[in-house]
Amino acid sequence: MIGIGVVGYGYWGPNLVRNFAETPGARLVGVCDSRLDRLNLVQKRFPGVQTFLQFADMLANPDIDAVAIATPVHLHFVLTQQALNAGKHVLVEKPLSFSSVEAAQLIDLAAKKKLVLMVDHTFIYTGAVKKIRELVSSGDLGEFLYYDSVRVNLGLFQHDVNVLWDLAVHDLSILDFILPERATAVSATGMGHVPGKPENMAYMTLYFASNILAHIHVNWLSPVKVRQTLIGGSKKMIVYDDLMPSEKIKVYDRGITLKQNPQEEEVHKLLVSYRSGDMWSPKLDETEALKAEAAEFVRCIRNGATPENDGEAGLRIVKILEAASQSLLKRGQPVEIK
Amino acid sequence: MIGIGVVGYGYWGPNLVRNFAETPGARLVGVCDSRLDRLNLVQKRFPGVQTFLQFADMLANPDIDAVAIATPVHLHFVLTQQALNAGKHVLVEKPLSFSSVEAAQLIDLAAKKKLVLMVDHTFIYTGAVKKIRELVSSGDLGEFLYYDSVRVNLGLFQHDVNVLWDLAVHDLSILDFILPERATAVSATGMGHVPGKPENMAYMTLYFASNILAHIHVNWLSPVKVRQTLIGGSKKMIVYDDLMPSEKIKVYDRGITLKQNPQEEEVHKLLVSYRSGDMWSPKLDETEALKAEAAEFVRCIRNGATPENDGEAGLRIVKILEAASQSLLKRGQPVEIK
Amino acid sequence: MIGIGVVGYGYWGPNLVRNFAETPGARLVGVCDSRLDRLNLVQKRFPGVQTFLQFADMLANPDIDAVAIATPVHLHFVLTQQALNAGKHVLVEKPLSFSSVEAAQLIDLAAKKKLVLMVDHTFIYTGAVKKIRELVSSGDLGEFLYYDSVRVNLGLFQHDVNVLWDLAVHDLSILDFILPERATAVSATGMGHVPGKPENMAYMTLYFASNILAHIHVNWLSPVKVRQTLIGGSKKMIVYDDLMPSEKIKVYDRGITLKQNPQEEEVHKLLVSYRSGDMWSPKLDETEALKAEAAEFVRCIRNGATPENDGEAGLRIVKILEAASQSLLKRGQPVEIK
Amino acid sequence: MIGIGVVGYGYWGPNLVRNFAETPGARLVGVCDSRLDRLNLVQKRFPGVQTFLQFADMLANPDIDAVAIATPVHLHFVLTQQALNAGKHVLVEKPLSFSSVEAAQLIDLAAKKKLVLMVDHTFIYTGAVKKIRELVSSGDLGEFLYYDSVRVNLGLFQHDVNVLWDLAVHDLSILDFILPERATAVSATGMGHVPGKPENMAYMTLYFASNILAHIHVNWLSPVKVRQTLIGGSKKMIVYDDLMPSEKIKVYDRGITLKQNPQEEEVHKLLVSYRSGDMWSPKLDETEALKAEAAEFVRCIRNGATPENDGEAGLRIVKILEAASQSLLKRGQPVEIK
Repeated sequence: MIGIGVVGYGYWGPNLVRNFAETPGARLVGVCDSRLDRLNLVQKRFPGVQTFLQFADMLANPDIDAVAIATPVHLHFVLTQQALNAGKHVLVEKPLSFSSVEAAQLIDLAAKKKLVLMVDHTFIYTGAVKKIRELVSSGDLGEFLYYDSVRVNLGLFQHDVNVLWDLAVHDLSILDFILPERATAVSATGMGHVPGKPENMAYMTLYFASNILAHIHVNWLSPVKVRQTLIGGSKKMIVYDDLMPSEKIKVYDRGITLKQNPQEEEVHKLLVSYRSGDMWSPKLDETEALKAEAAEFVRCIRNGATPENDGEAGLRIVKILEAASQSLLKRGQPVEIK
Repeated sequence: MIGIGVVGYGYWGPNLVRNFAETPGARLVGVCDSRLDRLNLVQKRFPGVQTFLQFADMLANPDIDAVAIATPVHLHFVLTQQALNAGKHVLVEKPLSFSSVEAAQLIDLAAKKKLVLMVDHTFIYTGAVKKIRELVSSGDLGEFLYYDSVRVNLGLFQHDVNVLWDLAVHDLSILDFILPERATAVSATGMGHVPGKPENMAYMTLYFASNILAHIHVNWLSPVKVRQTLIGGSKKMIVYDDLMPSEKIKVYDRGITLKQNPQEEEVHKLLVSYRSGDMWSPKLDETEALKAEAAEFVRCIRNGATPENDGEAGLRIVKILEAASQSLLKRGQPVEIK
Repeated sequence: MIGIGVVGYGYWGPNLVRNFAETPGARLVGVCDSRLDRLNLVQKRFPGVQTFLQFADMLANPDIDAVAIATPVHLHFVLTQQALNAGKHVLVEKPLSFSSVEAAQLIDLAAKKKLVLMVDHTFIYTGAVKKIRELVSSGDLGEFLYYDSVRVNLGLFQHDVNVLWDLAVHDLSILDFILPERATAVSATGMGHVPGKPENMAYMTLYFASNILAHIHVNWLSPVKVRQTLIGGSKKMIVYDDLMPSEKIKVYDRGITLKQNPQEEEVHKLLVSYRSGDMWSPKLDETEALKAEAAEFVRCIRNGATPENDGEAGLRIVKILEAASQSLLKRGQPVEIK
Repeated sequence: MIGIGVVGYGYWGPNLVRNFAETPGARLVGVCDSRLDRLNLVQKRFPGVQTFLQFADMLANPDIDAVAIATPVHLHFVLTQQALNAGKHVLVEKPLSFSSVEAAQLIDLAAKKKLVLMVDHTFIYTGAVKKIRELVSSGDLGEFLYYDSVRVNLGLFQHDVNVLWDLAVHDLSILDFILPERATAVSATGMGHVPGKPENMAYMTLYFASNILAHIHVNWLSPVKVRQTLIGGSKKMIVYDDLMPSEKIKVYDRGITLKQNPQEEEVHKLLVSYRSGDMWSPKLDETEALKAEAAEFVRCIRNGATPENDGEAGLRIVKILEAASQSLLKRGQPVEIK
């Protein structure tokens, strides 16, 4: 049995606790939080679980093989580093850290210690996103043309990260998962409407070596909640609406067909005609994503395997967020992603 | 009675013809098109109306006081110029022309000739957009924070203009109408997926002197049709869905409230709390927009009045489109709007 | 060319006129209405068409081979009778008449005169309903289990028929078209909320010899417009939403599977398990239904063919409406359909 | 503290357990179920709670003052009777019992023993239904005209009750709560599609002394889940969609206006005109309904108060279900409700 400790019992932590409490092969050993009231709640709900006010105390517990970190972002680096140094495997909330330099250090440290470092990119464990990857990689979609996502709501303003780091990170993890190709440059725009707070709305365009385009719209100040993604392929197109209780994925047999104008030889005389066929909504795997992810974390620890959402994936996403934040300051001026 | 001639009987022309045929104070005198089959159709439907293959012949007709121009964009300048020189008032499709230099020339010419020059910004005559302006100018919305519009569909690829000139122009005309403030800079990104054709998807962010942000997403290659606009104000927020058969406008009593943290004096310690109240969907004027616009054109001709959507409005929008097209070539690098 | 006369230029008549004006093989000869202002409108829109204040005058015109009747229901019988007696083929609005006795007389008269008698059951010419019939008759749906339709809106109160005769008639024509089996009994309930007016809301359940059930809900006093039909089959189920601009038909691979409980032999111990698979929305024929119906009317006249929606179909539906109206008076007591 | 015992830890029981575990003034003492695996689950989740395989053992526990019964319907009567006889207050799942005779016995027994008998009509504790009652009783809706509800899904077939007893009971409890008037007669139709099982789809029309009409459509064999209610009033109309994450209640300023035709004196010449104004969606109380209901149960026990959803309310609903089941067997023949 892999002994699990969870640090942070605020918004997301309870989901980690609940899932690890039921993950086969794992045993929930302890929960750490700096607030006593939260630890009391843990003890009421999970009487057999140890609670810790100090992270160092939790790390000192030899029954704990791995920790899951669900704290504010600015603690990700230091807690992950301490955990790895203490010989614990780590599942850390997204984004992996605030800086790509730190993220790279954590990757090196995990490698040196031969420990699993996994970033909690929950969406890639959903039935919907797994189905999208399947449609992309099977070639059913044809050539991948674009990804367009809207992720807005009346949300929890963060104090230390702008809305890109909070919400766009989800789309970046999805893109990282479904596309073999990596973005080469980013242009981002946005605005903060509250004095002294980071940007609460932002737009990000990603460029690739090919003519794929990706765009992400995130906003903490929207009157309605929207989670809608359009994915264009040359053969099929997808509408992915994560708020639908069912039929989250709709696959459209729609698009354009190009034909050489027989009377013209120039390329700009291509005739564009339209194709509009059936729509199909595949049944999706409905397993809770975090349940599958917890199982994968345990599997990787046991087998020494590397998860899809490893430190490298986390680093790739942090690099995009860094570049986007630079572009945001310059009103959309494109920034290369290295 | 104001005698009206319409040039161009393709996609939009029939709507102009139908409306001017029934506009009080106007008389539909003639229709011009370079295709004989279209003119035959006109004669079948409107037996009393004259048809012209040559624009010059229509202009020579003294019964025609004003012309409505619904041709491809590249003809807007030359036909408007000829019409004004022939002493005819002009209603011309949006965008007014391809270039701000030409647009300015047309404004000067109309002024010199004391003729009405009106650009067909149909949306500002809809009940929905009139209601939005009312909510903005009355102060009900509070401080204007942002405008976010999605205008996508599987659409008619244009040969000579990118998708911004075709679709974003609608949002620019709405913004010009509802906001007293003008955009100062633009960042635009986009992609063309058909060799030899202009960009079929694009994103545009508009910056203002204040902290208003506007963003427009347009796409000719979307699996579904979307016409949705979010408008954020400090007191109320609007969702405007133009595809809804009713309830196109929903006004949400939602937003944030800021409070000084009593224990802190620094501005970044403002506490953000959330407000979520009723939603209200006002009844809208359901008059066909083009009918109201045709009546306004006739009214301006009769009274020597200046319409909201005059040549100046057309020019302001062309300037933004020019700047956006420049930014698009530079992957989002911001371009000032002069 | 078949010469066509249309009587009644109120709500539906203009659609008949517009379609017959463009039906190949037909020529729109005349329009009859008792209101001069409507005839003036006809002359303005269709200058070559004759207008008649008296139906007898239209019938006397030898250029008219067939008439389309779009008057209030209480005139259907007498006008159809006069037209048939004058040797004209007839397309008459639904319902064919107020009484099955009259309907039978019209059928006999048409047979005797060898004339086409067609009832305007427009829905059976829509792409959606044709697709439903195809799914039913091909066996894709499996055993037909039920039909459930909601057809409500804030509607035009009729003076002489209750809401069943106005709205449920559409569903009855669809059922008549998609099912080979005929209803044997009906139970109907409803209420009139306006003194002196017929029932403005009603519910109708149809029983069949098999265990099919059909239910129709109609209402002129609904805050919202709904046109939604659920169709249950043992293999597949359909949701048909006629208000959707696209995807009107969705076919669900959902249902139940029965298994004998191995430990029990009694039939009531059958185990019910659930099946929930993909959804599929087929592309539909988008031809305007009335255009197809007008062409079919002309085809039947030319070839001496019998349309699906002949007088017999009209009679079957009138019989159900008669029985339902009786049941309505008795608060749902079932009435046999003969 | 009121000591609470819950019997039945299947589908609904866990919700009762979870809520009573956190209800102020209550203490969750024990859980009873005939399946050991379920009791093990309880012990894992709530280590301090006693578990019982025998109901008699739970009743013998003096720490338990009240029991909540969440068993199959056929056990409601006997378990409630035993609990009351043992001096325990009872909250029992809907419907109170299979027969009005039994229901009346339970009411008498509770009265004699001076114990609270409450039926779990959860919906009347939702923010949506409370708002509807407020709109009805304040007179905002005007005269109440009709209630029309659709409650369908691909559902859990019950073995011993038809779909009316399972699903329509919700609407009957809502009607009982929002209307001061009681139904006088019912007509019901329906069909069973599985041999040996009760009706899986049914329709019920309720008549009242006034011209109110209520209709309920329930179905366990629907491809999609629908929870939509239309409520017609003479001044305002409501659409209540329980599946909406927000805006569950929409209030429409729509309806008809009657005017005496000045040229006619007969009542059937009333002119009907239409009114279509704003729509308004009030913010609703979002407290979990069962939480509020658990608190009310405890309050009534403490204060000797009578809840809205007392045994009498339960009995009124059982009487309607009995009458409806009779009508169902007779294909809609109306049955009086005594």
